[in-house]
Amino acid sequence: MSERILVINPNTSHACTAGIAEAVSSFNAPGMPRLEVMQLADDEGPPAIVTWRDWFAVAEPLCRTIEREAAAAYIIGCVSDPGLEAARTVTDRPVLGMFRCAVAAALTRAERFGVVGFTWRSEQRQRRALQSMGVEGRMAGWVPLDLPMEVLTDPVAPQARIAEACRRLAADGAEVIILGCAGMARHVAVAAEASGLPVIEPCQAAAAAAQLAVIGARQPALTA
Amino acid sequence: MSERILVINPNTSHACTAGIAEAVSSFNAPGMPRLEVMQLADDEGPPAIVTWRDWFAVAEPLCRTIEREAAAAYIIGCVSDPGLEAARTVTDRPVLGMFRCAVAAALTRAERFGVVGFTWRSEQRQRRALQSMGVEGRMAGWVPLDLPMEVLTDPVAPQARIAEACRRLAADGAEVIILGCAGMARHVAVAAEASGLPVIEPCQAAAAAAQLAVIGARQPALTA
Amino acid sequence: MSERILVINPNTSHACTAGIAEAVSSFNAPGMPRLEVMQLADDEGPPAIVTWRDWFAVAEPLCRTIEREAAAAYIIGCVSDPGLEAARTVTDRPVLGMFRCAVAAALTRAERFGVVGFTWRSEQRQRRALQSMGVEGRMAGWVPLDLPMEVLTDPVAPQARIAEACRRLAADGAEVIILGCAGMARHVAVAAEASGLPVIEPCQAAAAAAQLAVIGARQPALTA
Amino acid sequence: MSERILVINPNTSHACTAGIAEAVSSFNAPGMPRLEVMQLADDEGPPAIVTWRDWFAVAEPLCRTIEREAAAAYIIGCVSDPGLEAARTVTDRPVLGMFRCAVAAALTRAERFGVVGFTWRSEQRQRRALQSMGVEGRMAGWVPLDLPMEVLTDPVAPQARIAEACRRLAADGAEVIILGCAGMARHVAVAAEASGLPVIEPCQAAAAAAQLAVIGARQPALTA
Amino acid sequence: MSERILVINPNTSHACTAGIAEAVSSFNAPGMPRLEVMQLADDEGPPAIVTWRDWFAVAEPLCRTIEREAAAAYIIGCVSDPGLEAARTVTDRPVLGMFRCAVAAALTRAERFGVVGFTWRSEQRQRRALQSMGVEGRMAGWVPLDLPMEVLTDPVAPQARIAEACRRLAADGAEVIILGCAGMARHVAVAAEASGLPVIEPCQAAAAAAQLAVIGARQPALTA
Amino acid sequence: MSERILVINPNTSHACTAGIAEAVSSFNAPGMPRLEVMQLADDEGPPAIVTWRDWFAVAEPLCRTIEREAAAAYIIGCVSDPGLEAARTVTDRPVLGMFRCAVAAALTRAERFGVVGFTWRSEQRQRRALQSMGVEGRMAGWVPLDLPMEVLTDPVAPQARIAEACRRLAADGAEVIILGCAGMARHVAVAAEASGLPVIEPCQAAAAAAQLAVIGARQPALTA
Repeated sequence: MSERILVINPNTSHACTAGIAEAVSSFNAPGMPRLEVMQLADDEGPPAIVTWRDWFAVAEPLCRTIEREAAAAYIIGCVSDPGLEAARTVTDRPVLGMFRCAVAAALTRAERFGVVGFTWRSEQRQRRALQSMGVEGRMAGWVPLDLPMEVLTDPVAPQARIAEACRRLAADGAEVIILGCAGMARHVAVAAEASGLPVIEPCQAAAAAAQLAVIGARQPALTA
Repeated sequence: MSERILVINPNTSHACTAGIAEAVSSFNAPGMPRLEVMQLADDEGPPAIVTWRDWFAVAEPLCRTIEREAAAAYIIGCVSDPGLEAARTVTDRPVLGMFRCAVAAALTRAERFGVVGFTWRSEQRQRRALQSMGVEGRMAGWVPLDLPMEVLTDPVAPQARIAEACRRLAADGAEVIILGCAGMARHVAVAAEASGLPVIEPCQAAAAAAQLAVIGARQPALTA
Repeated sequence: MSERILVINPNTSHACTAGIAEAVSSFNAPGMPRLEVMQLADDEGPPAIVTWRDWFAVAEPLCRTIEREAAAAYIIGCVSDPGLEAARTVTDRPVLGMFRCAVAAALTRAERFGVVGFTWRSEQRQRRALQSMGVEGRMAGWVPLDLPMEVLTDPVAPQARIAEACRRLAADGAEVIILGCAGMARHVAVAAEASGLPVIEPCQAAAAAAQLAVIGARQPALTA
Repeated sequence: MSERILVINPNTSHACTAGIAEAVSSFNAPGMPRLEVMQLADDEGPPAIVTWRDWFAVAEPLCRTIEREAAAAYIIGCVSDPGLEAARTVTDRPVLGMFRCAVAAALTRAERFGVVGFTWRSEQRQRRALQSMGVEGRMAGWVPLDLPMEVLTDPVAPQARIAEACRRLAADGAEVIILGCAGMARHVAVAAEASGLPVIEPCQAAAAAAQLAVIGARQPALTA
Repeated sequence: MSERILVINPNTSHACTAGIAEAVSSFNAPGMPRLEVMQLADDEGPPAIVTWRDWFAVAEPLCRTIEREAAAAYIIGCVSDPGLEAARTVTDRPVLGMFRCAVAAALTRAERFGVVGFTWRSEQRQRRALQSMGVEGRMAGWVPLDLPMEVLTDPVAPQARIAEACRRLAADGAEVIILGCAGMARHVAVAAEASGLPVIEPCQAAAAAAQLAVIGARQPALTA
Repeated sequence: MSERILVINPNTSHACTAGIAEAVSSFNAPGMPRLEVMQLADDEGPPAIVTWRDWFAVAEPLCRTIEREAAAAYIIGCVSDPGLEAARTVTDRPVLGMFRCAVAAALTRAERFGVVGFTWRSEQRQRRALQSMGVEGRMAGWVPLDLPMEVLTDPVAPQARIAEACRRLAADGAEVIILGCAGMARHVAVAAEASGLPVIEPCQAAAAAAQLAVIGARQPALTA
């Protein structure tokens, strides 16, 4: 029986896709819905979703991918949830956005969350997602890293900046930290130590939410 | 290594505890944090949490249980999240409330949720939890079953009433249904069919949220 | 001196474009910024923006059009404001969305507005725009026409339905009516008479807002 | 045909009235509703609306003026919208407040606005108007000039202070600037340059909103 | 020592003033601040505050009265709080509005209140007061009596209508009833019996709030 | 006739109980409902309510006390309103929480309040009460004293810290100060002088609210 959860990275970075796959790998267990990660073809997506224009542009290739690839649930693998509403119109299976899943996970842990953003350019998009969830008022702060890509992807280089951002969010009243980009999964421990707070990694938050959605829809077993 | 997630049913009903255990059983998989369900001793908790007085009274035995029972995370096994704040002061491990987890899961699926309540008496407590999450405005409706316990626990008898409640919530604008009591887990399919909407079962929502919390805190592995 | 305000209809319906042009024609006066209306090429846009997928898909051709066509300000000629955020990244001139302009105009007239929608499919998109403006709570009601296109575009046929929708919105507490689609401009009088309320036509609301933006940026004259 | 829009300055300052007339003059064009500016008689209004007592006191002379002077629409020419609700009860023509029009115009341009106030005394009144519009939460900041009148009315002297206020509002997250007093119309360019943001001048915002209201009510032409 | 609390009825109805005096009489006790009730002179106020124009017009005579009459605190004796902000600028003693006091008292008893209004014309004014308090969202309903004055002032005639309004508010979710006019003080028992809910009478609510303000400012005694 | 208002201090500190009694003594006047203050037995309550666990634990002894002690109204004598909802289920008489009463009193005086807290540990509990009242957004600031108990209970020692907290709240926009602990009643004058603002003492606020509730329920007299 196929209970595949398809994570679609809407950019064309193999490193990014590999990072997502590593982050969600702990959730692949016997009997649980299985997570698979893919990315858009090189001529379909941008190297990274940086601008609002990128954000709009990937909706259509995401829809086409979903139409082509059968799955029990889909995760849009970018922490600004691009194309989510469009994707939901082309399948009757659950489609989840990583940012919404991370915010929801944060709300199970505390009242006020802080977000470590990738660049200042993504704040407005994440605010929109918060508005659609109705929880914009619970964001204690949003602090961007604004680091060059070569620093961000280095395993060690961005740690000081991430720690600083987390300390600032804690000082501003955050009670839980959301890593606002799929590329920070390796830095959960740094963020937790610097802030003294629980840390939500969005790839994992989406993995858990998607497994819940798939298991919750195993209806015959439940009603037997 | 012990990654036990302890679900503590704050009432003394063995049937209720068994129902929770059944609902979360799908989440027990090799390599995933393991869910165990227990209940308060007969002289510590009420047969059911019906009143605000019950709600307050179980906080202390919940705290004592947590102090006594080591675990990687705790779930308070009642869908009005009794004693949650107190429990969080006696451990540094994650403590989760089933209702908050269900609401958070609903927010990953849609903007407006409806709640099928157990009795009218629990609405005010669930509203308070929504207020603490900041999302009271996203509740499209709250419809109680108000059935006698012998009907509610029958495998078939409450289905007509659950279906009716779900249809009404859908008509009132709900886009996702939350089952507002741990005892409705067997009726997910009925609720889904009647409403045509995704259905969130709170025991499962809490199981997924707790697994995420435990896996997310496996820090050495992530930073290695 | 060129003070062209370019209204870009993101669908490919010539009838729709002509209707917008007629609605804004009263604002073309000597000395005022001049409104011009165009539409996407047949291979760039859909016949109408019906789904979320359409909504995302027109962002890219809108951006390309703006890059190609110099203007003092741009209006996105569809009452769900598609591509607005993307369009704003490709020009430093004002870019306005018809729905936001109509809502803003309504707020100058009263506290609570009602919206006559085109089809039920557009409600969610208009709600999102209200959320981004922060005024979702001021919508007294949203009533769709849900008429076949041939009825909607008839000069007389949709009047009964529009009147009925306006009466219902007034009964629900609306103090001003917003026509939620660019194709209802000919029915302002019907809506006003049925409701007894002021009526905001979105093409005109956007025309006035764009003229304000352009005149307000005539800085040398003001500071001389 | 008379399509006069009457702007009633509720104070008795001829300089203030002249400033309003200059600010709105760009909107007087052939075929467009014509803006005329008048002021209260010397024994009816205060030299300036400084206190809440002034704010209440001008309602009655505003009502009497509107009863006496036929017009297609009225603008209350003070950026704290005094007497607006009273004025609306004495005519069935549109009556607009300059502050509400400026805020509405700001919302067509961005999500978060900042206000440059005249004196600290007007903040509370402008907050009330924001509350009645439902958008108090979208104000990023409110910075008063608190300058002596002779400085404020000098063509050059207040520029440094205005620039400083605009820079501070931009730093606090404003995405658009509202000039919170009718007497700053000559300083739009200074505000725009200092902040790097769009600037809304309230006299002009009200002029555009009133023209929209009058043109939108030209019903026979639209339905013919 | 003078601890007079002056209740100023801003209309010129002796019957209304007498009704307020009767309602507050229970609060006149030895050692407590003493409540005195007066009304505006016949040439200063309207027979009743019915319109927004009345509401604005009484601000100035209220200010003059306060300037003339020394007191330890002032109550504006009308349940739409006219002139409150102006009155606060002419004295450094507490000035209280009856409606705000009634709403505050309701919030000490329950989460959601319903208001029985005098006429539909006062709803908008009371909403504004709720907005300024930030609690508009807690109003479960607002039901006007809309009775002719001769019915309203009859000791028995309005009871059926009051009872009906209270029942409807209870059905709409009100947990406490506010009588929204100073002239309903004799009908507290009817309202309580019909609704089964606590009832707040605004004259009494203001009396208690004013006594608290005066006693709380007896600073020397407290610090001795 | 017995119109006793029973204030139940849920801790076992005689000094605290005496302080409450002193604070409310001004409200005991002939003809007014009489305030009596008691405390939980030494084996029923904690020395002070410091943690969430304390907060939950006192609900049950408060309920038992209310069941045992007849009164016309009850006040829970702790400024985090512990057990309020439970207490309301065991009596049909009014039960009031000191913090909610203080917040309500503040709202009769101004729009934005600041709270001087006892320790940082109580902020979260007071925020929850504000959420249940719907006015969390009106809190301009919350500043804890965080003083050792021997300093706090000294008649002079805490004054500097209280004054500093009040000045900071005023600077943050508070227009009225709430003393967030029953043990600061002697410092009202210090707080008022430091802030230049009205000060609400919660024991007195609850006394006034309870007298209003009891007098308002003297129904036969009113309807005779």
